[in-house]
Amino acid sequence: MRLKDIGEIGFIKRIESGCLVRDKKVIRGIGDDCCVFKASGRMAILLTTDMLVEKIHFLLGSISPYELGRKSLAVNLSDIAAMGGTPREAVISIAIPDTVDLAILDGVYDGMKSMAKEFEVNILGGDTTSSPEHLVINVALVGEAAEDEILYRSGAGEGEVIFLTGPVGSSAAGLDLILKGREIQGWEALIEAHHNPYPHIEAGRIIASTKKANSLIDVSDGVAADLGHICTESGLGAILEERMIPTTETFREYCKRFHEDSNHLSLHVGEDYVLLGTAVAGAANELRAALESEGLEFHQIGQMVAEPGLRFRTRENSLESMETSGWDHFR
Amino acid sequence: MRLKDIGEIGFIKRIESGCLVRDKKVIRGIGDDCCVFKASGRMAILLTTDMLVEKIHFLLGSISPYELGRKSLAVNLSDIAAMGGTPREAVISIAIPDTVDLAILDGVYDGMKSMAKEFEVNILGGDTTSSPEHLVINVALVGEAAEDEILYRSGAGEGEVIFLTGPVGSSAAGLDLILKGREIQGWEALIEAHHNPYPHIEAGRIIASTKKANSLIDVSDGVAADLGHICTESGLGAILEERMIPTTETFREYCKRFHEDSNHLSLHVGEDYVLLGTAVAGAANELRAALESEGLEFHQIGQMVAEPGLRFRTRENSLESMETSGWDHFR
Repeated sequence: MRLKDIGEIGFIKRIESGCLVRDKKVIRGIGDDCCVFKASGRMAILLTTDMLVEKIHFLLGSISPYELGRKSLAVNLSDIAAMGGTPREAVISIAIPDTVDLAILDGVYDGMKSMAKEFEVNILGGDTTSSPEHLVINVALVGEAAEDEILYRSGAGEGEVIFLTGPVGSSAAGLDLILKGREIQGWEALIEAHHNPYPHIEAGRIIASTKKANSLIDVSDGVAADLGHICTESGLGAILEERMIPTTETFREYCKRFHEDSNHLSLHVGEDYVLLGTAVAGAANELRAALESEGLEFHQIGQMVAEPGLRFRTRENSLESMETSGWDHFR
Repeated sequence: MRLKDIGEIGFIKRIESGCLVRDKKVIRGIGDDCCVFKASGRMAILLTTDMLVEKIHFLLGSISPYELGRKSLAVNLSDIAAMGGTPREAVISIAIPDTVDLAILDGVYDGMKSMAKEFEVNILGGDTTSSPEHLVINVALVGEAAEDEILYRSGAGEGEVIFLTGPVGSSAAGLDLILKGREIQGWEALIEAHHNPYPHIEAGRIIASTKKANSLIDVSDGVAADLGHICTESGLGAILEERMIPTTETFREYCKRFHEDSNHLSLHVGEDYVLLGTAVAGAANELRAALESEGLEFHQIGQMVAEPGLRFRTRENSLESMETSGWDHFR
């Protein structure tokens, strides 16, 4: 079945079910000019938006529609996690070329709804339109946080421990494998990391509510670029320790097997969607305990320093300067 | 200059100035994973989003970049107006093909900022990405309203007066002229109506705060389609009076000169971005007075009736059934 068989209103009716997963404080969902909801008490409101464009962010022949739907929400959830917030309400815009079958769209929305349900996020509205050639999905996501718990990129202090809440590089290796047309078998975990990232909302809430960290960001552009943002915003520099960068065994095997530069893939590509933050040493230990007691990860990877710029201490103990560049859409 | 000369961060820095026009209750704007702000007191939060796609919603050779920027915000402002709300914070996603010059983008953002400034809306963040071929702009806009003042499509009652807050058809005539490649001279007002619509925020606030109306929507899909939404959501029908439909003199001249169907253009095309609502007769007169005292318009155009469906009373006093169809992106 094609979209033109059911029309715009038919399509909206088709995707409507399962969009509301939490009634509380929702006044009006899909079906009016705006959705309407209430803030919780004195909580601050977080707002983020991300656009996924076919052939730039995804290839319909590579990612499944279901994974695409999940990822379009996940990248926004990760931004809420990076502030230490709780995600709440989403609106979704989609531009659809007439070559895209309804079954693909059903898959995309099923994926979105599965991710939304896992994090108790309501899909309360959006915009549907046609597109001349490429599928475009934009999610705008509202979250909330207590104002005094919110973590910014600008809060890092000199001497603080730099940490990650999960391994990096697997998503980059998955993308590398796809782009180079390599056989997937045996490397499914890397593809999964790239196509189905899991936002670290729970870790973000623990980091924020325990007030043990002073800065936080999610790794979307790559550790080097995102740590670069913390450095710039906090007016500091950082030293990363090569031996401390957490990666998975599959990732290390992939790099070894295909002679890929593991530092490039783990630090300069991105889309890991783990959290990267800083905390003073004592608090960092308490934070590790708090995260690990919930089955979550904490990996110390370096230290904030007064001297500006990013440096990298190799396994051989030589200190090299490091480019902060990650992915730039325009270069 | 091209986008690739300045890169993504350079571009964000370039557009940043003039985005914050109101400090109040804004905690963090552009530059972190999310923007952060506070709700005002016990106000409900309104959220809307609209996507404009090149070759579907606009042609870069026809609309100026400045007007495109204004319109991308205006269509969202109009949704806030249609709830009776006050617009507050916007985030903007943009997908940019590498063929688009930086001067065009500067124009787009200047237009957005001029519209945002007029309505005291902050642009607090967004997402910038490349696009394989077409320019895509998505705006997500947060507004607020007192919960007991919000007007929905579903609130209309039997016997209520149907009203518009401005003339209709000019935008459709402007589009008609562009698509048919006619000479613009003399018809600039129609092009202006299509390229630079003005959201009826002030009228929406008066309609909501005086509590004289019971339903409200903005005319984006056309009077017939949008009134159809009110009918469906309110479980009623409506009769429109041909002699009462407000149009401009230029619009009427255009239809006469080119033998265009004025009823089709004024009722079935849309993008007028005036407000369409219903009120009981006595309250409607008070509402007219309240709007006119502020220099705003109120045009009675028909009546809500119990019998479902939309009917049209011609100047010759014959009652015809009317299609509620307006623009459908997928048909």
